[in-house]
Amino acid sequence: MDDVARAAGLSRTTVSLVLSDKGGSSIPDTTRERVRRMAAELGYVPNALAAGLRRQTSDTIGLISDVVATTPFAGQMLHGAQEAAWKAHKLIMLVNTEGDPELERVAINEVLVRRVDGILYATMFYQVIDPPTIVGNVPVILLDARASDASLPSFVPDDHAGGRTAVAHLVAVGHRRIGFVQVSGGVPAAVERLAGYREVLTEAGIGWDPSLVSRGSGDAAGGLEAASALLDRPDRPTALFCFNDRMAMGAYRAARRRGLVIPTDLSIVGYDNHDVIAPWLDPPLTTIQLPHLEIGRLGVEHLLALIDGTFPAGAPPPQVRIPCPLVERESVSTPSG
Amino acid sequence: MDDVARAAGLSRTTVSLVLSDKGGSSIPDTTRERVRRMAAELGYVPNALAAGLRRQTSDTIGLISDVVATTPFAGQMLHGAQEAAWKAHKLIMLVNTEGDPELERVAINEVLVRRVDGILYATMFYQVIDPPTIVGNVPVILLDARASDASLPSFVPDDHAGGRTAVAHLVAVGHRRIGFVQVSGGVPAAVERLAGYREVLTEAGIGWDPSLVSRGSGDAAGGLEAASALLDRPDRPTALFCFNDRMAMGAYRAARRRGLVIPTDLSIVGYDNHDVIAPWLDPPLTTIQLPHLEIGRLGVEHLLALIDGTFPAGAPPPQVRIPCPLVERESVSTPSG
Repeated sequence: MDDVARAAGLSRTTVSLVLSDKGGSSIPDTTRERVRRMAAELGYVPNALAAGLRRQTSDTIGLISDVVATTPFAGQMLHGAQEAAWKAHKLIMLVNTEGDPELERVAINEVLVRRVDGILYATMFYQVIDPPTIVGNVPVILLDARASDASLPSFVPDDHAGGRTAVAHLVAVGHRRIGFVQVSGGVPAAVERLAGYREVLTEAGIGWDPSLVSRGSGDAAGGLEAASALLDRPDRPTALFCFNDRMAMGAYRAARRRGLVIPTDLSIVGYDNHDVIAPWLDPPLTTIQLPHLEIGRLGVEHLLALIDGTFPAGAPPPQVRIPCPLVERESVSTPSG
Repeated sequence: MDDVARAAGLSRTTVSLVLSDKGGSSIPDTTRERVRRMAAELGYVPNALAAGLRRQTSDTIGLISDVVATTPFAGQMLHGAQEAAWKAHKLIMLVNTEGDPELERVAINEVLVRRVDGILYATMFYQVIDPPTIVGNVPVILLDARASDASLPSFVPDDHAGGRTAVAHLVAVGHRRIGFVQVSGGVPAAVERLAGYREVLTEAGIGWDPSLVSRGSGDAAGGLEAASALLDRPDRPTALFCFNDRMAMGAYRAARRRGLVIPTDLSIVGYDNHDVIAPWLDPPLTTIQLPHLEIGRLGVEHLLALIDGTFPAGAPPPQVRIPCPLVERESVSTPSG
């Protein structure tokens, strides 16, 4: 540490304060940066375990997930979380539980024994869950999940508003017969997007026709099947809202097989803004952006506020819905009929 | 700890050994598991910082990456790494550097001060790099990267063999005019896949024609452009090998715009086995599997061997190339001409 102080031209006290993350705002950021650079160059590796033992912290955040980073959205969430954590000089410690409850219990214990400052509990897609039992006394945040009893802070996409946005866009350009290529099953995203679809059609005075909601698996094959059923109707819709971009990929195929040109004969709006699909479909797909980067970032920022005590203790855990904006490309036009 | 011992019906010594990860093989795994479960149920959270300080380890592995988990392949690598680490009761600590050298130096320091047992240094796609300067005395493994001086263990896809596999498959079914829809620039994957392409054509007595290598950006737009140039030749190829599945997506479009039916008029082989593209193209794409799950798993297993000292000190750092197998779907047939 003496070497670092000498090289940086600063007092040993200043160096010690910087390297132990103390001294608060009395030490300018530029000085802190200089000390850290000198320390790195001189090969000074302080022992954060010892410092952490004193402070009962490891300056890390645990991320427990059912499936980490195997979808592009999980990757973006991780990315947003890591960036926000990094700004606060914290690292993310990662455990993937594959949704196994026993593994999850062990995983939570493994991150707790490492004295994480807090835990992010993330699910692969938006789910309502029983809150995990976390024994240690650290704050917990849910990402892309909410607790059935709202007992934990939660950050999820606003799929209800996202569904409204998609359908309102189609209504605004003049469509009145709008089919919904919906995913089978009742995941919250499907329920909320359908509610948005119904509301907008009702509010526009169009009314909603349940037979225009066609269901399939949440992939291109399911989209092909569900869209085909709608396009084979004598009164086929002039526009389709698809549950996700993968189903939209199948809807494109259904349209092509019937000689329908997108967007002239059929407008399509997807959901997700999946980076390897939406910009590359022919024509490029107008869709709704999933806000996973924001979910990760805002979740960590709230976790840091809980850790620092800047969020009022006793306030109800925020249940945050992040907007899903429209991304306009070339798959929507006014109806030709 | 007394409560745990009582609940598990074991001596306090046994419980203490298990909870501090000692006792070696003298304690059966089933007993260890029982102790851990009881401890978790009773809310016993040992302090791993204190234990780590004694042992100078945090039982974590640092993962430094230029872009973590924003591609499905990075996600798979992370998945493989985390699974292997987890088996050894180690967690992954993650830092994303965005390729910024200054951030990378800080990131390496941040994981070192937390006394990681070793470091995984991963790049987003296969690269030859100057080995990172790691000050601390911990083993370092490169994932999807190799050091220009082979001074660090490295785990990369065998893109040379993968290129051979793709082209050999086309030759085996009877193709002789095989175009290469290649990515612009000279990344190692492009160089190696091209070498495989040339070798197979030469060995088959077909010889290789440089004008059949057409270049574009590594996405669907680039694939459309590069494939179009090949398909507009009077002597158009009967088959295309595409640098990746996204370029293959563009090649499909180029074929469709010319009324060419895949695979009857044109066979196509991709690369990556990108899960949201390859199975969903119409027809499903025959491609080469990127082995990122294996890269993550094998990399961590080797890192653990270095940490445990079971890999002989002084042995040259292994430079491992992981096979990229063929995944057959429906985009290849015998040439019709």
